[in-house]
Amino acid sequence: MRWTMSSDRVPEAWYNVVPHLPEPLQPPLHPGTREPVTPDLLTPLFPMALIRQEMSAETYIDIPGEVLDILRMWRPTPLIRARRLEQALDTPARIYFKDESVSPAGSHKPNTAIPQAFYNKAEGVKRLTTETGAGQWGSALSYACSLFDMECKVYMVRASYEQKPYRRVMMETWGGEVVPSPIDQPDHPGSLGTAITDAVRDAVSRDDSHYSLGSVLNHVLLHQTVIGLEAREQLQLAGEEKPDLVIGCCGGGSNLGGLALPFVADPDVELLAVEPSSCPTLTEGKFEYDFGDSAGMTPLLAMYTLGHDFIPPSIHAGGLRYHGDAPIISNLVKAGRMRATAYPQGKVFEAAIQFARTQGPIPAPETAHAIRATIDEAIRAREEGQERVILFGYSGHGLLDLQAYDDYLAGKLEDV
Amino acid sequence: MRWTMSSDRVPEAWYNVVPHLPEPLQPPLHPGTREPVTPDLLTPLFPMALIRQEMSAETYIDIPGEVLDILRMWRPTPLIRARRLEQALDTPARIYFKDESVSPAGSHKPNTAIPQAFYNKAEGVKRLTTETGAGQWGSALSYACSLFDMECKVYMVRASYEQKPYRRVMMETWGGEVVPSPIDQPDHPGSLGTAITDAVRDAVSRDDSHYSLGSVLNHVLLHQTVIGLEAREQLQLAGEEKPDLVIGCCGGGSNLGGLALPFVADPDVELLAVEPSSCPTLTEGKFEYDFGDSAGMTPLLAMYTLGHDFIPPSIHAGGLRYHGDAPIISNLVKAGRMRATAYPQGKVFEAAIQFARTQGPIPAPETAHAIRATIDEAIRAREEGQERVILFGYSGHGLLDLQAYDDYLAGKLEDV
Repeated sequence: MRWTMSSDRVPEAWYNVVPHLPEPLQPPLHPGTREPVTPDLLTPLFPMALIRQEMSAETYIDIPGEVLDILRMWRPTPLIRARRLEQALDTPARIYFKDESVSPAGSHKPNTAIPQAFYNKAEGVKRLTTETGAGQWGSALSYACSLFDMECKVYMVRASYEQKPYRRVMMETWGGEVVPSPIDQPDHPGSLGTAITDAVRDAVSRDDSHYSLGSVLNHVLLHQTVIGLEAREQLQLAGEEKPDLVIGCCGGGSNLGGLALPFVADPDVELLAVEPSSCPTLTEGKFEYDFGDSAGMTPLLAMYTLGHDFIPPSIHAGGLRYHGDAPIISNLVKAGRMRATAYPQGKVFEAAIQFARTQGPIPAPETAHAIRATIDEAIRAREEGQERVILFGYSGHGLLDLQAYDDYLAGKLEDV
Repeated sequence: MRWTMSSDRVPEAWYNVVPHLPEPLQPPLHPGTREPVTPDLLTPLFPMALIRQEMSAETYIDIPGEVLDILRMWRPTPLIRARRLEQALDTPARIYFKDESVSPAGSHKPNTAIPQAFYNKAEGVKRLTTETGAGQWGSALSYACSLFDMECKVYMVRASYEQKPYRRVMMETWGGEVVPSPIDQPDHPGSLGTAITDAVRDAVSRDDSHYSLGSVLNHVLLHQTVIGLEAREQLQLAGEEKPDLVIGCCGGGSNLGGLALPFVADPDVELLAVEPSSCPTLTEGKFEYDFGDSAGMTPLLAMYTLGHDFIPPSIHAGGLRYHGDAPIISNLVKAGRMRATAYPQGKVFEAAIQFARTQGPIPAPETAHAIRATIDEAIRAREEGQERVILFGYSGHGLLDLQAYDDYLAGKLEDV
């Protein structure tokens, strides 16, 4: 069963969790002075509207009408009960997933790409630069720029650029320009950190350009809260008062944050972050101030980090290969409000195949991390005889990741 | 804007257009005797439930509950108003599309794959064989078989098998087995006709197997009528009494039939079939009895045909490379109830890019044929100052067709 809502039920305001966090959020620091950053430091990169959102203490922030008109082309996204998966697991748990794969770019990423392009356009910016890992974010921003007649330059982590040629074609179909990162080291597999460095350098070198980030920052997680706000309403349509457990995969944290943040204020709702064992930021990183990029050009963020020079192995879940985590997510984990767990990619693809063969959809490797944890939690519910309501984020489809499935099915996947 | 409906609004009966055609449908003939086929001739290939549907004169046929439960995982599919495309074309036409790309297999094909697998399973069949052109149908049947724990063997037109390796991976992810056709001629590009021959030969050679066809036959078009039945209701939700014009791409005719047949009885609704110039069955074929496959093993069907030995060029819209058309579609065109038009693939990809850059979604090359015709009709509406309501079928996404987009964007597409 699916719960849909008509397009007039897209939330008209984003939910800002910052005033509701268990502990105050530590401010970003200037990379040179180590003093809290001021808005003027950020103006070469971001429009004022986004800088204000980044620092806002308001609980609700209105979504502009022009942004709503676009979101309504695919939102509200469906909430689906995974009954066939429940049956296969013989679990008393009720499993729901929020399907963000129905956006034109195939993931949750357009939820923030659209407002970012909108606010930049409104302030006269003609061109955006960005990084992309798996290609989901670069696709979303290329798409958003095509709607606002803006140029888009995407620095794509080289490992993904080579593994996923069709992601490049997708971005080019929307008019984006794509190059592998790091641009100056052709033998380097790259990471989100190196690609951020390339994109920031490009943006500050040109007057007509701004930089756009697909995760980590407060305003990005803010824009993603439409996911959780819709899911909360749809769960009620499905006859559930609330979820007992909310699960999301976590790279920078925007997918997880989008689904989970609207539930933070309810202490009965457990929150679970799932990450790859090969890039275990929340489970094995240190909570400290670190740079967002590999070259140390960005402000310092208070977050769980493996160090800004950490280069994870070239796993297929390219979107989870980030050395740090969103300050908001880090804050929640540090305060004990959110749990975190990690899986190697073999177990993750095993879950992806089980999901595809019971429910149908073929998930992105990133999304399959959340599915792995959901399956394990549903099995635990069976073993403990508990009727739990599990909500997980189906952040994107795997239709541009079929090489990974081919490797897994042929026994060629490196199980890191 | 989008019009969705809750999953309890999936139609509970299929619409059988046969008793409502402008002229009686000519029966299929035995390939040897040229006498009308009797059900017993078909039992080596199909279950009795489908044979009865193939020959039914009832207007409505109930959809089994178990089939409905599965369809409800993604149905009703959304009806979307393409406002941004309208604005780009500056047209007074109101353009709506019915989005079948949201199914797990990415097209309308599961609408019939699910009931076909269901009825075969119910009659004890353990294994299905089939052909696939672009891979959409093979994907859908592999998916359906995974849900019913059946084996699936797919003969894929060699040109597509080589152009689209990820379609094979998709089918294998659902547990299907895929081989290129014709199996005995490794240098032959294949066609739907050769692949049907391979699949039929396999099915009749094994007691545990039946054959499954993804288009052309009456029962296949019947199963697809959920598309048009939903669209009719959703158009009313959108405030439109009815469409003035219904447009669909046409290979075998199941996508077009699914959308258009529920509107046949209303003489005010114009119907338009769109096909590739390189395989112009309706626009340049002859209406006569011909075989469904290339080897002349199947019953003879009364249809528009280019001859069962016609091998079209290897265009990217592999799903439209069929030498004939559904007898129901042929009947409508012959009687003047439906128009047909044809486009070369360069014009088709130009339309696909315009759609992607205004609306967002990247269409399958097959679907882009309908988009091309829609754009031309919307321009005509502007030139004639007419406020027309155009409904077209968004039969599938192009995410497994990005090589074609790469070729087009690089100026390497052969414009046949």
